[in-house]
Amino acid sequence: MLAEDFSDWKPVSPSKTAIATINPIRGLLDSGVAKQTGKESSEPVINMSLGDPTIFGNFKTHPCVIEAVEKQLKSYHSNGYAPSSGNPQAREAIAKAYSDPDNGVIFHPQDVILASGCSGAVEMSIVSLCSEGDNILLPKPGFPLYKTNAESRGVNYKLYNLLAEKQWEADLPHLESLIDDKTKAILINNPSNPCGSNWSKEHVAAIIDICAKHRIPLISDEIYNGIVFPGVKFTSAASVSKNVPVLTLGGIAKRYLVPGWRVGWVTLHDPLNVLVNLRPYINNLTAIINGPNTLIQKSLPDILSGDFNEEFSAHLNSGLETNAKIIVDRASAIKGLTPIVPEAAMYIMILIDPEIFDSGIRNSVDFFNSLMWEEHVEVLPGDIFDFPNSFRVVITPPPEKLIEAFDRIKLFCERHYKS
Amino acid sequence: MLAEDFSDWKPVSPSKTAIATINPIRGLLDSGVAKQTGKESSEPVINMSLGDPTIFGNFKTHPCVIEAVEKQLKSYHSNGYAPSSGNPQAREAIAKAYSDPDNGVIFHPQDVILASGCSGAVEMSIVSLCSEGDNILLPKPGFPLYKTNAESRGVNYKLYNLLAEKQWEADLPHLESLIDDKTKAILINNPSNPCGSNWSKEHVAAIIDICAKHRIPLISDEIYNGIVFPGVKFTSAASVSKNVPVLTLGGIAKRYLVPGWRVGWVTLHDPLNVLVNLRPYINNLTAIINGPNTLIQKSLPDILSGDFNEEFSAHLNSGLETNAKIIVDRASAIKGLTPIVPEAAMYIMILIDPEIFDSGIRNSVDFFNSLMWEEHVEVLPGDIFDFPNSFRVVITPPPEKLIEAFDRIKLFCERHYKS
Repeated sequence: MLAEDFSDWKPVSPSKTAIATINPIRGLLDSGVAKQTGKESSEPVINMSLGDPTIFGNFKTHPCVIEAVEKQLKSYHSNGYAPSSGNPQAREAIAKAYSDPDNGVIFHPQDVILASGCSGAVEMSIVSLCSEGDNILLPKPGFPLYKTNAESRGVNYKLYNLLAEKQWEADLPHLESLIDDKTKAILINNPSNPCGSNWSKEHVAAIIDICAKHRIPLISDEIYNGIVFPGVKFTSAASVSKNVPVLTLGGIAKRYLVPGWRVGWVTLHDPLNVLVNLRPYINNLTAIINGPNTLIQKSLPDILSGDFNEEFSAHLNSGLETNAKIIVDRASAIKGLTPIVPEAAMYIMILIDPEIFDSGIRNSVDFFNSLMWEEHVEVLPGDIFDFPNSFRVVITPPPEKLIEAFDRIKLFCERHYKS
Repeated sequence: MLAEDFSDWKPVSPSKTAIATINPIRGLLDSGVAKQTGKESSEPVINMSLGDPTIFGNFKTHPCVIEAVEKQLKSYHSNGYAPSSGNPQAREAIAKAYSDPDNGVIFHPQDVILASGCSGAVEMSIVSLCSEGDNILLPKPGFPLYKTNAESRGVNYKLYNLLAEKQWEADLPHLESLIDDKTKAILINNPSNPCGSNWSKEHVAAIIDICAKHRIPLISDEIYNGIVFPGVKFTSAASVSKNVPVLTLGGIAKRYLVPGWRVGWVTLHDPLNVLVNLRPYINNLTAIINGPNTLIQKSLPDILSGDFNEEFSAHLNSGLETNAKIIVDRASAIKGLTPIVPEAAMYIMILIDPEIFDSGIRNSVDFFNSLMWEEHVEVLPGDIFDFPNSFRVVITPPPEKLIEAFDRIKLFCERHYKS
């Protein structure tokens, strides 16, 4: 080839989809001083921002889970492709584990579609139901990945309010007022990230009633199914739906403390059989990346039906409750902060009274950035979840870390009250 | 809730994207008698259709690969989230293993983006470069997943011819004639699925030159990198590109015989730095499903740098060559069939002379369906790869199976010659 001048080669433009795929957490972290550590403190950073229970080593998966995978690994029989919708035994195991015949929920293997983590299940459910220009109703505060998926695909979203004063129940009149003829799905997330709330059976049923009235399918993200504090009862949306089609999103990430393993699923509960045309297309969507890791898929029968489940779950949930109490007690004692008591999942939302702080802390992004800079404590500002004047704390760090973190937060607040 | 009549609830419509996401293999299998077994034979089916080398147990991954994953599994330190672009040590290991400093290719960890299998890398590369209404050039015959991805996203594709008579080199004038101002990428797949071909350095360079002339990035699917028959030399596209940005797609699926593990990657080679604006958006796209399984990611340093690699690779490639020879010899001896001798990957394409067969075998789909029905031998018709009058055979089954399959194919052909 002749020597040539390539100075006319302009930077390649990203596609419209790539540009529309916004990760708000990254946007936030890139925008401020976050992730930098200030000069005011030499203490190590306490990370209460990432919803990963494995970081500190105090919450670990059960040895039986490891053994189940080891068995597959050493068999040399779980290295090949599974059908893109999932390994048949994995689908059967999930169908069995999540059926609830007393409440009319019976899943068959073909009602289960494996996905690359619950994130993959979020993508599959939104993409299969919503075209460009359609809309979906999402919770506020809510996990930002729902918005990211909608925006990435040109799907509009409308945010319905969750009410802090009612333990984060949905504002049902507000939710219903958002529905129009382009609304193709309502999405709920119960137990909730970021709220740590768990809805009553009556409240879940009230949402199902709205879906029924308007003939709209429900997407129910139940990745925190099984993670409710001792004595609290979780209600799966499918179990109260006698007519509304429910796409339930689940996975092993949180319940078994293995978020990096990336195995999730969608289950289809469809009493009226109105998803009949959707099913083959959901299966086609799985062909794009051909399902999740087969070692883990093939371990699911052992994992989901293992004898260890009950005790393991009880231990996890009581540990989470202990941690939540520590945070609630300490945050309640800090002027200007109001924790909303959680009952489930791995998070707590803490409201900030913006009137009480000095001009350096005008909002929760300032709070987040300055707290990180001055005290090396990392939380997430409520803005990430479309809920300004609040921050989310992950409740999984060990008690001594939580105590130290809130000691630092107290010092931080005292330094920033209006004089 | 009051009893209510839901008979007006019409079936839910799939989204436009779901409808556009066509899996041609499924379409084919659903259309005909395939997967049914005819009454003419009681023999077990011989599967030479699925590109999964693990099916028969004769090709197995190396124990060192299993040990690498076992180490991570038992550490309890690889269960958490990795950054969505990939675990830093995994990115570093891939960068190191695939750099080729003698040819000016030096990857840094930030040039590597992990994906859910090479399928995920295909999606990421096409979606990041091409918007709805743009076009991409794809090989014919070619792996159907490229088309599936393009159609799913409203991206047009144009097929450039590979020439059977030139060992499946691209028809360069034809390829160049397809380029227009909406062409955002050219995709090559070398070594090729379905062809089993391996291009010379000169041919790869000639394609790079076309990209350079038209200022178009190259997507080079090199999932079969390292799988060339003894004595054959593979040329990575990046190694001959002094200016063209090359997005190389790779993974461990084929080279380590673990296609179900779903760990692949994109590497960015960008001498002119024209991908500068693309990089952050590719990273954002990874947030949708948050990367592949962390157990495997964290095993990559041990897997890619293990001492076993050279011997393992030599053993695999010589076994594949042995199998390919068996198929070539037997297919050559059957009137109406012309195998194109492969040099790489795990496939061979066999041309069918349609003039020679009776009216029951009008095309390769008939050939495929009837062969399955009558002889329980499963191949894939060339139509799947946009190359009618041919079929693809996977060369990984054990020699005795291959011999039996071609004995049956011979009987089948003899039964169907025109009288």
